Amino acid sequence: MSETAPLVGILGGMGPAATADFYRKLIERTPATRDQDHLRVAIWADPTVPDRARGILGGGADPYPKLLDGAAKLRDLGASIVAMPCNSAHAFLTRLAQDTGLHFVDMVRETAHELADQPHADAGPVALLGARALIASGLYQRQLTEHRIEFVTPAEDEQAALDLAIRHVKEGNFTAASRVAAGVAEGFLERGAGRVLLACTELPIALSDVLATGDPRFIDPTDVLARAVVREFSTARRG
Amino acid sequence: MSETAPLVGILGGMGPAATADFYRKLIERTPATRDQDHLRVAIWADPTVPDRARGILGGGADPYPKLLDGAAKLRDLGASIVAMPCNSAHAFLTRLAQDTGLHFVDMVRETAHELADQPHADAGPVALLGARALIASGLYQRQLTEHRIEFVTPAEDEQAALDLAIRHVKEGNFTAASRVAAGVAEGFLERGAGRVLLACTELPIALSDVLATGDPRFIDPTDVLARAVVREFSTARRG
Repeated sequence: MSETAPLVGILGGMGPAATADFYRKLIERTPATRDQDHLRVAIWADPTVPDRARGILGGGADPYPKLLDGAAKLRDLGASIVAMPCNSAHAFLTRLAQDTGLHFVDMVRETAHELADQPHADAGPVALLGARALIASGLYQRQLTEHRIEFVTPAEDEQAALDLAIRHVKEGNFTAASRVAAGVAEGFLERGAGRVLLACTELPIALSDVLATGDPRFIDPTDVLARAVVREFSTARRG
Repeated sequence: MSETAPLVGILGGMGPAATADFYRKLIERTPATRDQDHLRVAIWADPTVPDRARGILGGGADPYPKLLDGAAKLRDLGASIVAMPCNSAHAFLTRLAQDTGLHFVDMVRETAHELADQPHADAGPVALLGARALIASGLYQRQLTEHRIEFVTPAEDEQAALDLAIRHVKEGNFTAASRVAAGVAEGFLERGAGRVLLACTELPIALSDVLATGDPRFIDPTDVLARAVVREFSTARRG
């Protein structure tokens, strides 16, 4: 790999554990037998970005200025591809791409593509699990509808439980997070959901044991994003 | 945390999995109940830095220019504290600190301090396990001698096995890495070593299951570095 090997930018910190999880998955998904085969990566992880939920639902500080600041830093470092391992922050992705000229790999779009490509003739609807703000943003719903993928969203009590599981991950309480998230997912599967879309980067952390079993019903957008970056990077290297 | 909250720089990529492991441990060691309580972090992970072993043992490309380039990038981003989760690269730490003016948290020094502070009256010598170049550099031996800590180093066959375990981690073959590294460590413990110092950031990854049991005989410099950064950062915030 030459000195001019492309640089992958990661706009992270939302939350930090999700960024670490994405970076680990990016490394694991990269075909490599020695350090020098791996991707050059720059990570800007500013967890002081104001809550994306409040930014979307209203009533809080605007997260956009800090997101833009981080993206600009990655651009100035020379990033040619940027990944943002936070589903809710994708509400700002188009604006960030326009304002910085950066090429973002879109986790929401990539995940919808992957769902559309999976065999699922017999499966029930996709259970769309995420933070309240992500569901309210309609980001995934638009992509799923575009791909004619049937989906269901959490009821109020399920949403409250999911937000609790996400908070537990952010607090570092992984056992509690795992139990609550698994319970919500199980409820959807019992009611006939064919797949469970873990559309908040804290949820694959909560359900890492389930994902490690390779259960194909669980869709991990963090891993989808990692594979998409490796793919785009390979293209960039060939190009 | 204000906009001027200090920034932690991580000079990583040596190897990438070790950087991800360090970042995860840094997050887990940070007292936090929400994203905004976490440290602001910038990671520069360039795995194309030439092999540190060849840089130390001779006969290969000099890794220093790329290390300096990465450190300068972290300085320009505003890092006030820098951690470098690679033991071998600490052979270049003094020079990097002088050339950049950055404050590096010294993983080797912090680990020696921690070993000296542990109760170990009944324990046998510390088994110093690391890559061949790290052992050849004498970095840990100097610190351990300074603290009057008795230690033993790998014999040639043990060193070859450790280098194999490290290579397995870099290849992503964690099961093989775990078995080889555990075997070498077990040999030292059976011969009377009181503690096992995992002085290569790939070894705590290989032995993550052993470390998860909390066995106090195993010393993980990556975790020592994470705790040292959290401590220094807290001091910086108070200061």
